[in-house]
Amino acid sequence: MKVKVIVTLKKGVLDPQGKAIQQTLNGMAFGNVSEVRQGKFFDIEINESDETKAKSQAEEMCKKLLANLVIEDYKIL
Amino acid sequence: MKVKVIVTLKKGVLDPQGKAIQQTLNGMAFGNVSEVRQGKFFDIEINESDETKAKSQAEEMCKKLLANLVIEDYKIL
Repeated sequence: MKVKVIVTLKKGVLDPQGKAIQQTLNGMAFGNVSEVRQGKFFDIEINESDETKAKSQAEEMCKKLLANLVIEDYKIL
Repeated sequence: MKVKVIVTLKKGVLDPQGKAIQQTLNGMAFGNVSEVRQGKFFDIEINESDETKAKSQAEEMCKKLLANLVIEDYKIL
């Protein structure tokens, strides 16, 4: 089954890429954008039909490889 | 309000970064991972209380800046 994972920077961690996107949007007729934070998205196909098992595997992957837990949070959809 | 946007590569577009992650996972006791596709995630704070308006603005942003529609799809959550 497919598991979707989002990895985002923790609150308080500077996100210069997001800031650059925000400033560009502000200069493009989107003046009401007050903040943009960028993160990563992973679409993972796991050969495992049990949803609970697949999600717990995805969680392991986040802890071990996909996210840097010092500065990032992860969320499994 | 906050709008979340996911930008992913279209089906069929090569994703070498996702492939590298998949191969790394396969070498790390996650042998049952058959595909990984990586995308981008944006958390956008818009000064607009109407949800429909905020989402249609986010869609405009995707079309004009956040996604390259030739090779990417976007999804507003």
